[in-house]
Amino acid sequence: MQTRFTDRFQLKYPIACAPMAMVSGGILAGAVSRAGGLGLIGGGYGNAEWIAQEHALAGDTPVGGGLITWMVDKQPDILDAALSNKPWVFMLSFGDPRPYARKIKDSCSALFCQVQRLSQLDLALEAGADVIVAQSSEAGGHGMNNRATLTLVPEVADILAARAPNTLLLAAGGIADGRGLAAALTLGADGVLVGSRLWASRESLAHQASKALAVRLTGDDTDRSIVFDILRELSWPEGYSFRALKNTMTERWSGREDQLLQVVEEERAKYLAAVAAGDFSIAHSTAGQAIGMIHDIPTAAEILERMDKQAADVLLRLGRRT
Amino acid sequence: MQTRFTDRFQLKYPIACAPMAMVSGGILAGAVSRAGGLGLIGGGYGNAEWIAQEHALAGDTPVGGGLITWMVDKQPDILDAALSNKPWVFMLSFGDPRPYARKIKDSCSALFCQVQRLSQLDLALEAGADVIVAQSSEAGGHGMNNRATLTLVPEVADILAARAPNTLLLAAGGIADGRGLAAALTLGADGVLVGSRLWASRESLAHQASKALAVRLTGDDTDRSIVFDILRELSWPEGYSFRALKNTMTERWSGREDQLLQVVEEERAKYLAAVAAGDFSIAHSTAGQAIGMIHDIPTAAEILERMDKQAADVLLRLGRRT
Repeated sequence: MQTRFTDRFQLKYPIACAPMAMVSGGILAGAVSRAGGLGLIGGGYGNAEWIAQEHALAGDTPVGGGLITWMVDKQPDILDAALSNKPWVFMLSFGDPRPYARKIKDSCSALFCQVQRLSQLDLALEAGADVIVAQSSEAGGHGMNNRATLTLVPEVADILAARAPNTLLLAAGGIADGRGLAAALTLGADGVLVGSRLWASRESLAHQASKALAVRLTGDDTDRSIVFDILRELSWPEGYSFRALKNTMTERWSGREDQLLQVVEEERAKYLAAVAAGDFSIAHSTAGQAIGMIHDIPTAAEILERMDKQAADVLLRLGRRT
Repeated sequence: MQTRFTDRFQLKYPIACAPMAMVSGGILAGAVSRAGGLGLIGGGYGNAEWIAQEHALAGDTPVGGGLITWMVDKQPDILDAALSNKPWVFMLSFGDPRPYARKIKDSCSALFCQVQRLSQLDLALEAGADVIVAQSSEAGGHGMNNRATLTLVPEVADILAARAPNTLLLAAGGIADGRGLAAALTLGADGVLVGSRLWASRESLAHQASKALAVRLTGDDTDRSIVFDILRELSWPEGYSFRALKNTMTERWSGREDQLLQVVEEERAKYLAAVAAGDFSIAHSTAGQAIGMIHDIPTAAEILERMDKQAADVLLRLGRRT
């Protein structure tokens, strides 16, 4: 599939790997870029040493990086540290990108800004974003509720067409196969940012037991809440929540966060022990609604090839029928 | 666009009008069927006289009907009354369709069953559904959270392909233009069930002031909650909620339903007065996330023609690019 995104970044596939914190390391990002997509290393909560190590693991292939914007607000040095690894492109998510835009645009080839609401798009355009990533509620990990890819992407596409026609658009959330990629393109995206499908790849740093659990479940088996943020003592700004596989922890506390806070030390101890033991009936597995379309754990290269081929087949078949 | 759905029901467009309670009357359903789609009269909470009157208003054009399954459980006579109008097809939503399937299949040409979860699909297939409607969280009105069209439709399509290959699939939720229709087809649907876009048509029975408000808003401006069910004293089963335009009522009470219950009589009086006055800063406007793609109030025929043309254009353009 050829799009403005593949043209601009000289890619074989219109697919980027989401910079998933502690999951998208150099091995995964490098594999995605080598296969013809765009790999991004997930800088997450900001550990300069880890980011440098993962860039080294990516080898000579160009890979991008990403950070959580509100964490950069708290420790601005982490952005300089991340940029010192010479990422190909850089993505900011969850916060106001404007204070960091100049620095990023001066030190790499493109600024990607992720938004979950139309109301955040203005800030991203003011920042001079080269690529907007429209992330929907079906996505795994952090994000917001109440906007789905099917409605968010075309609305953002219409605004970009009117106000910033050279700014590219990637769809993020719920895309795990060629049908989802084809759908994103029909909705007006220039490509997709893939999380869960690459989380469940051989090269991802997600725990083997977590991936093995995920491939047996359906899209009904995820939930968006702040339960795991409370357990991890992460102070996310108002409005954000975290989609993960349902387990005993979410079944018990999702929607009852006030009650969780009353027994939080006990529950946190249980959670931390489960993380250490790799027990995902209690620990979090960071996957989105797309997990129902994920039934195996192939290499990143195979995932990209399959998605692209299926998307092309679907679009060719439907195009002939019009 | 030609699909298995247009073939089976001899339609010009793969588009059905959602049987929206008190909105999809005979005028709207008739207009949709005459234009080449499939119009369904919304039987809603069950008023035999209203349903008969609306069937008469549809004229000679074949139109379908629909009821809320758990309301039929409470007053089974309403199903007989609805079927006495000789609907073309009949749709059951929100409950176990099995007790009513035989009667419906014997008295009209097809049983449509709406599901929000994979776990509901078994009941619909046991009922012998001819058409499954997969309704996602982005939809306006009643439904469930946590499943988006982008992930629900392909998962249901895969299950149908394996277990019931002759059962058709419609996507519902978030589809208001040709991009959404094209996306639904790429995801594996045979057609779409359209709510909000036809809610905002000339022929719909929605209040003029409610439609006029809706076309000015974006997809960020809706919310899913049980606030309006509490205010309307509707006892929906666990798990269902209602998406509507945000207004002062949802801004105040969504997520604070326990507190609303403490002052419910006062708030209900305020709400009922607003409904009577057509004040939609307090009364509910039943629209989904797709509202951000809706900027005018045309006829149903124009809506169908636009959607079909845009879908065909998008698919032809992308098909050529593969």
